[in-house]
Amino acid sequence: MINAAILGYGTVGAGVFGVLKMNSAAIARRAGDEIRVKYVLDLREFPGDPAAEVLTHDYKDILDDPEVSIVVETMGGLKPAYDFTKQALLAGKNVCTSNKELVAEYGVELLTIAREHSVNYLFEASCGGGIPIIRTFNSSLTAEEIDAVTGILNGTTNYILTKMRVDGQDFGDALKEAQERGYAEKHPEADVEGWDACRKIAILSSLAYGNHVSYKEIPTEGITNIEKADIAYAEALGMRVKLLAVSRRNEKGVWALVAPMLVAKSNMLYYVDDVLNAVFVHGNALGDAMFYGSGAGSLPTASAVAGDVVDCARHLHKTIRSDWSPKKAELLPPDGVCRSFFVRFSGSEAEARDIFGNVKPIRTLGASGEFGFVTEVMSEKNFHEKCSGSGKVIKSIRIA
Amino acid sequence: MINAAILGYGTVGAGVFGVLKMNSAAIARRAGDEIRVKYVLDLREFPGDPAAEVLTHDYKDILDDPEVSIVVETMGGLKPAYDFTKQALLAGKNVCTSNKELVAEYGVELLTIAREHSVNYLFEASCGGGIPIIRTFNSSLTAEEIDAVTGILNGTTNYILTKMRVDGQDFGDALKEAQERGYAEKHPEADVEGWDACRKIAILSSLAYGNHVSYKEIPTEGITNIEKADIAYAEALGMRVKLLAVSRRNEKGVWALVAPMLVAKSNMLYYVDDVLNAVFVHGNALGDAMFYGSGAGSLPTASAVAGDVVDCARHLHKTIRSDWSPKKAELLPPDGVCRSFFVRFSGSEAEARDIFGNVKPIRTLGASGEFGFVTEVMSEKNFHEKCSGSGKVIKSIRIA
Repeated sequence: MINAAILGYGTVGAGVFGVLKMNSAAIARRAGDEIRVKYVLDLREFPGDPAAEVLTHDYKDILDDPEVSIVVETMGGLKPAYDFTKQALLAGKNVCTSNKELVAEYGVELLTIAREHSVNYLFEASCGGGIPIIRTFNSSLTAEEIDAVTGILNGTTNYILTKMRVDGQDFGDALKEAQERGYAEKHPEADVEGWDACRKIAILSSLAYGNHVSYKEIPTEGITNIEKADIAYAEALGMRVKLLAVSRRNEKGVWALVAPMLVAKSNMLYYVDDVLNAVFVHGNALGDAMFYGSGAGSLPTASAVAGDVVDCARHLHKTIRSDWSPKKAELLPPDGVCRSFFVRFSGSEAEARDIFGNVKPIRTLGASGEFGFVTEVMSEKNFHEKCSGSGKVIKSIRIA
Repeated sequence: MINAAILGYGTVGAGVFGVLKMNSAAIARRAGDEIRVKYVLDLREFPGDPAAEVLTHDYKDILDDPEVSIVVETMGGLKPAYDFTKQALLAGKNVCTSNKELVAEYGVELLTIAREHSVNYLFEASCGGGIPIIRTFNSSLTAEEIDAVTGILNGTTNYILTKMRVDGQDFGDALKEAQERGYAEKHPEADVEGWDACRKIAILSSLAYGNHVSYKEIPTEGITNIEKADIAYAEALGMRVKLLAVSRRNEKGVWALVAPMLVAKSNMLYYVDDVLNAVFVHGNALGDAMFYGSGAGSLPTASAVAGDVVDCARHLHKTIRSDWSPKKAELLPPDGVCRSFFVRFSGSEAEARDIFGNVKPIRTLGASGEFGFVTEVMSEKNFHEKCSGSGKVIKSIRIA
């Protein structure tokens, strides 16, 4: 019997409690031992809920119990999750989490503490929900030099963008609907401003390239400025607007970026709609591979956390290797990255051609006094210089 | 230093040799030790090739060398691969392979021997080439009850079907082109008759459901009967013909099937073209997840094998758990499975309606004296009874 404790009985915590119960036979078989949830920590009461029987309000109960070898942190946020996690690791307990905020901020430190105490700090659910992407980096693509990660990593924004396209809603209405359906939070900034996707690409890039990528240094744009007109232009181009989280490694270093981009039909990410997530990984031997699935939701996320619990049970006193070293990756500015850009332009076609060369105007219903076009491939720096010189660029969106 | 030996210096074997060299730094970091290829076994000579320095023609050199702890079997076929693998495992050496034929036929026995000798028999490259799907079952989706696996598991047939659709070729010409490009073998039966996909779905189903699924019991149809007319009908329906390998588990048991099917645009498999592979997995908590990438090719396959080598290096004397038990799964006949069918019919619309209910005729150019329609959802058994009673069904294709 292996004893676990769940910190925080919210959506994910309750999901983990449920999955460990629902699939207990398969889990015991694969873990090599039965896994019991001995404690659930929460400040609230849950009368009538099966968790009520194991509920505690005092973390000390868990920390001081030598029988507890796995702690599941599903509280979210930095405080008190950081302190609780650190204390658990220092006490020689394994920790599994879905808390991307904590992993992006303190992951390096917590991984080091785990290593020093021969335990594990696992966070499969922190990126891509139920999609097993973290373990793919740590255990599968171990013979690869990975040089690119590109993903739709935030379900809320993908849902909003899908609604805007399919139902013709504007951003505000689509956000409201997402909130009503529980896909967006009351304070949706972390999702719609791209911060959540930014943390996730920082985590994935750290694992993929081996050096610590700080999320604070990643240029990040959300989708709050995306209008119906942008969606209409995208449609006219046979493309879709997606919030992409991107990173690349070349001989000079690593760069990363979170921004809405136009995705063509030839790219599988074009077809990833609603709350689904997908991650493309490129390796020097593998080529491209894509991982697709539920990026959020109680049960898929809980499944990933519970998979970490099984992995901890299999490695109670042995740290599973990960490539994320404390050495900081120097992030390059994306200035030199070359791509095409979509531009909405308020000047004349002649003016556009003066600045951007031989562009082909696109006009859509409902956008008067302007037209759109796609530039040739140029560096970000070159593009921004052209834009700031013109005064007639209403808006631009990168093309993936 | 960990010593490995490669058996068979063909496409995959040379790829593994190359990847272990090309990515040696990353591999050593992740394996925790440098990995050296001490031997390459092949009957041929390779003058001037770097492998020439470590070439041997005698397997005994490898078997009797206590320094060799990892054997890479990339010979293909059952003989002598089976004997060599068994001898290596019995001698306490780990074995990694890309040989799906051997894994489907003797995997259960070889896994048992590996377990008894605290070593590993790993075969990530046997299904889906570079796509990390085996380890996903063994190590990631460990908290799931998996109930469905659906895949495009054979690159050759997917390439041929793509060519038939895009270039309007018939099966014979598309096969010929695939052979010229090295995507199909001179004797292409294993691919085009569906046997290769059948072995792969047997392996994946054994891992997913835990009991041994024998590939010999899986009803298997290839793509040799797919004509240009079928592709035209599919196009008219907004669908694509794909060779699908499918298995399901429900409370009654497991069923599996390999057959060409019509796939709609709402299914991501619709967009999987050329030699690419993709596998959908459904779990009771996870929901759907899809894994997509290069299903074949020297380097992607070699990457998967080399990833297994790293995993062996991390677990030299400890068997990594897999869920594939020697207990045989009783395969249900797919009779009770319910779905829609596409039918090409030589009778009148009235006759079709008499048998299949209110069907909507589809006519395409170039198919005269017949029309097509899609049936309502019914069991395989029910459908086949209706067909055999009518005498007017030219052909039918399942709808995925």
